[in-house]
Amino acid sequence: MVRIGIIGAAGLSGRELLYLLQHHEEISVELVTSSKYQGQKVNDVFPELNSYTQIFQPNETDVSGCDLVFLAIPNQASLERVPKLLNQGLRVIDLSGAFRLRDTEVFSKYYQLTHSAPELLEESAFGLPEFFREKISAAKMVANPGCYATGALLGLLPLGELLGDLDRPPIIDAKSGVSGAGGRVEDDVTNYVSVNENFKAYKTFSHQHQPEIQQYLEDLSLYRSANTGEVVFTPHLLPLNRGILSTIYLHFKKVVSPGEIRGRFSEFAESQEFIHFLGAGVLPDLKMSVNSNRCMIGTDSDQTGKNWVIITSIDNLVKGASGQAIQNMNLMFGLNETQGLL
Amino acid sequence: MVRIGIIGAAGLSGRELLYLLQHHEEISVELVTSSKYQGQKVNDVFPELNSYTQIFQPNETDVSGCDLVFLAIPNQASLERVPKLLNQGLRVIDLSGAFRLRDTEVFSKYYQLTHSAPELLEESAFGLPEFFREKISAAKMVANPGCYATGALLGLLPLGELLGDLDRPPIIDAKSGVSGAGGRVEDDVTNYVSVNENFKAYKTFSHQHQPEIQQYLEDLSLYRSANTGEVVFTPHLLPLNRGILSTIYLHFKKVVSPGEIRGRFSEFAESQEFIHFLGAGVLPDLKMSVNSNRCMIGTDSDQTGKNWVIITSIDNLVKGASGQAIQNMNLMFGLNETQGLL
Amino acid sequence: MVRIGIIGAAGLSGRELLYLLQHHEEISVELVTSSKYQGQKVNDVFPELNSYTQIFQPNETDVSGCDLVFLAIPNQASLERVPKLLNQGLRVIDLSGAFRLRDTEVFSKYYQLTHSAPELLEESAFGLPEFFREKISAAKMVANPGCYATGALLGLLPLGELLGDLDRPPIIDAKSGVSGAGGRVEDDVTNYVSVNENFKAYKTFSHQHQPEIQQYLEDLSLYRSANTGEVVFTPHLLPLNRGILSTIYLHFKKVVSPGEIRGRFSEFAESQEFIHFLGAGVLPDLKMSVNSNRCMIGTDSDQTGKNWVIITSIDNLVKGASGQAIQNMNLMFGLNETQGLL
Amino acid sequence: MVRIGIIGAAGLSGRELLYLLQHHEEISVELVTSSKYQGQKVNDVFPELNSYTQIFQPNETDVSGCDLVFLAIPNQASLERVPKLLNQGLRVIDLSGAFRLRDTEVFSKYYQLTHSAPELLEESAFGLPEFFREKISAAKMVANPGCYATGALLGLLPLGELLGDLDRPPIIDAKSGVSGAGGRVEDDVTNYVSVNENFKAYKTFSHQHQPEIQQYLEDLSLYRSANTGEVVFTPHLLPLNRGILSTIYLHFKKVVSPGEIRGRFSEFAESQEFIHFLGAGVLPDLKMSVNSNRCMIGTDSDQTGKNWVIITSIDNLVKGASGQAIQNMNLMFGLNETQGLL
Repeated sequence: MVRIGIIGAAGLSGRELLYLLQHHEEISVELVTSSKYQGQKVNDVFPELNSYTQIFQPNETDVSGCDLVFLAIPNQASLERVPKLLNQGLRVIDLSGAFRLRDTEVFSKYYQLTHSAPELLEESAFGLPEFFREKISAAKMVANPGCYATGALLGLLPLGELLGDLDRPPIIDAKSGVSGAGGRVEDDVTNYVSVNENFKAYKTFSHQHQPEIQQYLEDLSLYRSANTGEVVFTPHLLPLNRGILSTIYLHFKKVVSPGEIRGRFSEFAESQEFIHFLGAGVLPDLKMSVNSNRCMIGTDSDQTGKNWVIITSIDNLVKGASGQAIQNMNLMFGLNETQGLL
Repeated sequence: MVRIGIIGAAGLSGRELLYLLQHHEEISVELVTSSKYQGQKVNDVFPELNSYTQIFQPNETDVSGCDLVFLAIPNQASLERVPKLLNQGLRVIDLSGAFRLRDTEVFSKYYQLTHSAPELLEESAFGLPEFFREKISAAKMVANPGCYATGALLGLLPLGELLGDLDRPPIIDAKSGVSGAGGRVEDDVTNYVSVNENFKAYKTFSHQHQPEIQQYLEDLSLYRSANTGEVVFTPHLLPLNRGILSTIYLHFKKVVSPGEIRGRFSEFAESQEFIHFLGAGVLPDLKMSVNSNRCMIGTDSDQTGKNWVIITSIDNLVKGASGQAIQNMNLMFGLNETQGLL
Repeated sequence: MVRIGIIGAAGLSGRELLYLLQHHEEISVELVTSSKYQGQKVNDVFPELNSYTQIFQPNETDVSGCDLVFLAIPNQASLERVPKLLNQGLRVIDLSGAFRLRDTEVFSKYYQLTHSAPELLEESAFGLPEFFREKISAAKMVANPGCYATGALLGLLPLGELLGDLDRPPIIDAKSGVSGAGGRVEDDVTNYVSVNENFKAYKTFSHQHQPEIQQYLEDLSLYRSANTGEVVFTPHLLPLNRGILSTIYLHFKKVVSPGEIRGRFSEFAESQEFIHFLGAGVLPDLKMSVNSNRCMIGTDSDQTGKNWVIITSIDNLVKGASGQAIQNMNLMFGLNETQGLL
Repeated sequence: MVRIGIIGAAGLSGRELLYLLQHHEEISVELVTSSKYQGQKVNDVFPELNSYTQIFQPNETDVSGCDLVFLAIPNQASLERVPKLLNQGLRVIDLSGAFRLRDTEVFSKYYQLTHSAPELLEESAFGLPEFFREKISAAKMVANPGCYATGALLGLLPLGELLGDLDRPPIIDAKSGVSGAGGRVEDDVTNYVSVNENFKAYKTFSHQHQPEIQQYLEDLSLYRSANTGEVVFTPHLLPLNRGILSTIYLHFKKVVSPGEIRGRFSEFAESQEFIHFLGAGVLPDLKMSVNSNRCMIGTDSDQTGKNWVIITSIDNLVKGASGQAIQNMNLMFGLNETQGLL
């Protein structure tokens, strides 16, 4: 049994971790923390998490009795806590954005924070198991990917060297449910009357997941922003709870046949438990992936064969956050990668 | 032209006043206030109110250049402001709950406030035009009814002396959209993820509109709580923006024929521009009244003829607040009662 | 391993059965049928049911290789199929309303059908495990309860003999998500634009779950409609996918203390895995039970101590249909009652 | 008073026409038709259209007593009816797609219909008043634009000759509420449970509004598909009733300054009553335009100054259909262009 601690267990990602772990047979949740609810029983605060009778501890609680700690706290808090946990010899999965970007200047620009632990960036594994399985398995520290980055990268990276034939940067028009767009109790951004029956773009050309997509796309493919320009990424806020649909526009410098594109995705999907590639003429919707760890992928092209649309759907709280974190945990502890996940 | 001031014009009721007044041809909006947005132009803050180029003034601004002032501010603020406005010789329509209950002890119990201007309670008119048209027309000060009270009273009072034949108190099971249940930016009560795909009752046996329904029901009918007990009222929060549907359960001590019930409502509806009584077998839904000042009413009974259900639907921001306020204004200034309203 | 067949596996209840059974470790789904999708693979039609590679068979397919057959087909179809299945020696859980009402005249009135197999009514078990556990365990045929009936009965029956002290019939004001109100592809009843941002009552005094509530309430408590009148039941349609909240109004002829009421529910909840009774001052919302087999219960009373409100929430597709069906299956086959369920 | 007939008055666009015309003071609705509701009173079928006591006539009814006929019927029905109405000397505004595309082959490909009245294509005016005001004013027949085409063209055409500097075709990622995506009672496309909490793309590279955008963009700007490729257009279905948000991606071959882009839109907005250009840093959302005839426009660029995003929001039933039709009517009959519209 892997002994687990969850720091920040009462936020949306933390709660989703608790929800999903109910189906996992090889872990025990030893310790949960919440600054807001410390001292209260989990299932009193969240009756839907009925099987949890633990008491929320303060965030600062010592977690050294755990084998693995999930951090589901803000970026700055993760920046400070991760080094301490690693020093204690604990293994960590960090759901914040603090350890995903290699370039600390880019980090500062997009996160408005100074990076206080750059020495950990190299040894952290980026928790996208479909592409970093080995590194994750061996890692002390996994930086769990951003939800938008997960949806975008899973629609791009399977194309492999074909991405070297792009003559324009990918344009990623992404739409997220409220829980993926900062669905916390805040100002009026996520107030019901503001969101319901409404839709909008936000953070155009400035969202912190753009450099994350950019970095791993360059790392793992022949796409080079120096040649074709930076990835264009626009997030939008959908009036629904969960799910991210990413509509990705690609333009190749030569004709690419449906067979080539579909072959790449099919092959990828066959080798990856949580990736599903839809048949010709079928496009994913959010329903296909919500409440599961699946990424659904569909494609279409125009008559020229140069313009392609790749569409991916994920549940931002599962494959885009807590489900993927569990998938990473399974790898780190040598468990079946799909254990506890649908 | 009636010169209008709106204190608290940036809240939900204030904005709805502004929206509706765009269709009114005999008023001019002289002055709008907002503590949050003071100094900003209305149509910069709310692009959908495009025709308003006024600047939001501080709430304390002198409004003595107006003929009529709408107050769309919290109860305590209204309690303090109304006496001052009346002393200045202004006419006032107060959308808060501060001047609706005659009994200041009941007021204290339900509003957790001490009433500082009890002398104004008698001279205020209760702004339910269908039953207080004359008093409103002559009033200096109108206490605009609560949204739930409007929906409930319009389903009960048309029954007239039949209410003397109830052998049990009315049970009012009311369901409101978020804008009627305190849809302001607050804690997590109206957070999107908390409300969407969710539904719940709140303030059982303790909502402040219960004594309002109770008081006017006793004033205007033969129903007596001393005989049959207090009105039972349960509000619920619907995952939608606007509208209140009230399902009212009545039990008569003798058989009441469909003709009797339907006759009362038909007669009432014929004499009231904003009341519509639906044909046999038709029940109202929210769509029928949202974005209008209408109250839709439908009825049904069981085989015994003693159990009746009366269902009313209104738009909580229109007939339940700002539309009714404009209807009251029309009466106060001798305009056509329906001017500017649908 | 229990070998399972599902007739009508592509409807909402059938799909939910498939979804939930993914977590069940002691069954194998041998056979699924669908008239609409026959010949197609389950996970092609419903990508979210990814683990199912079975082909939908025609509804008439021979299911004799199964140990248990779930029927998730219309009432008339169940009426015809159940006798045949029982004659084949199969065990059956019927999710339709065909075998719930003892009185075939009442059945005819509410279902507009003639009952063609009245001989099976007595031997069928009513599948509400909290009250019929033994009969279910031994049954060849279980009539799975209606969704509204489940929500209402679980809020009433735990009160036991206290129900003999009611001096008026219970009033049940129930609100259901679209999947519980006939969320099938039909005329405009469940069309998006008709339902979204809307709310209404339907089938007042005529819904087929009223006699179901009535019958089991009389069977299992001291409540007698002959004394106080028939249960009043009004269903409403909520603009959301899942969940039923039932607001139940009770009036006792004598004062009942909070301790008495709360004691009954606490005791009941302690002995039943899927029943949760909320602490004083807490009322259930749908979120607490959606996607689980739980029924959440909360209560409140007025100052007289005679007026009580009992509120229950369930997921209409889980505890109100397919989850409860699995709970019944577990009982029938001697499995852990909670196996596969949350 | 303009005497108006509406053929197909009970569909979504027809009903919206009726709703909006309640505020118009210089028209009288002489005649409304509906095949589904013929013989019934409008306000019996649609209680929210309370002021209409007309009886729905059959669609084939003679409308020769009208000055203007709105057609809100399917494409094939418009194709057949329009020539007859023009032959009777009536003026017509057709809300279908039958007379928008100049090229009958393109029409056949996208509409799967043979064009039976190509001789009318040249004399029809395309009803986008901001660009075809004169032709509309003089027209006998106006082809009211498609909802997506309206949202896209109003975000592109104001850029004028700058569009000649594009080195790639515009990519239009559009998201529409259900009423704009065929919100009629149909198969499961618009079924509540299918749409709610869901989101998807549809008709990639094949939607009939793509050639409409393409044609008018080439007609009115220096953009040439022969040089840079065809406009890429992807519609998506939002879980809400009304509104279209179009995110338009442009890439210029040279740096374009914010001043240039913003100057174009500002100038355009100043001269057009229903166009509003948002200040720097502000992006439109649907709330800003829903229930009005307004198009809201916002822009942003990346650091290179070559990548631009233009975002427009409209109400698909108002500016995207019935409001724009009324705007066209106002022009055709010499009325104030904004009469009856917000």
